[in-house]
Amino acid sequence: MENLRSTCPIAAFLDLWGDRWTLLVLRDLYRGKSRFAELQASAEAIPPSILTQRLKVLVAGGYVSRAAYSEHPPRHDYALTEKGRSLVPVLLAMAAWSEENLPGVESVSPRHGAHSA
Amino acid sequence: MENLRSTCPIAAFLDLWGDRWTLLVLRDLYRGKSRFAELQASAEAIPPSILTQRLKVLVAGGYVSRAAYSEHPPRHDYALTEKGRSLVPVLLAMAAWSEENLPGVESVSPRHGAHSA
Repeated sequence: MENLRSTCPIAAFLDLWGDRWTLLVLRDLYRGKSRFAELQASAEAIPPSILTQRLKVLVAGGYVSRAAYSEHPPRHDYALTEKGRSLVPVLLAMAAWSEENLPGVESVSPRHGAHSA
Repeated sequence: MENLRSTCPIAAFLDLWGDRWTLLVLRDLYRGKSRFAELQASAEAIPPSILTQRLKVLVAGGYVSRAAYSEHPPRHDYALTEKGRSLVPVLLAMAAWSEENLPGVESVSPRHGAHSA
């Protein structure tokens, strides 16, 4: 993909996904959100300009699909592709770590017994 | 720890670890590096000011231990603590994703041979 700092797979992952927002968009799509307004309404309050940019990159990379559901005004549904779903195990590993190590976070990881998809 | 954007464990993880450098320092310590110069010499060429700052945060958080091995000049050995090792499963999940999805990265993840899923 873009320029990677090294051939280390951990560094490569962080080059692609090591920011505070992109994986949260995938998280929301994984949980069934599909519309811009829904994604924007999440508790972390992603700035709309960042959401727009991240969705563009995710669609361009094949991680997310985009389909028009209205022409006037133009509106789109977004969904995880199978390629996008490949990130889910990493999201769950992150969630499991936080659930074990950070008091006060919710428990959402399916393998820890909350609801699953 | 610091201010979290929400109670979502994935967001919390990214609040703590969602930058391009911190987890690479843990990766290097996990691989057995222990000295500042060794950490700085990794392929990603972490800027020394960032390395200094990240080590401080990691030591303060209890993820990394620091022990002097020289007084003049002052020099320290760094090592992962047990708390720091709690991040290893996430590092391995990241590595596994990159190994499966990014052609050209090395294969380092112990639980994956060249190819598996």
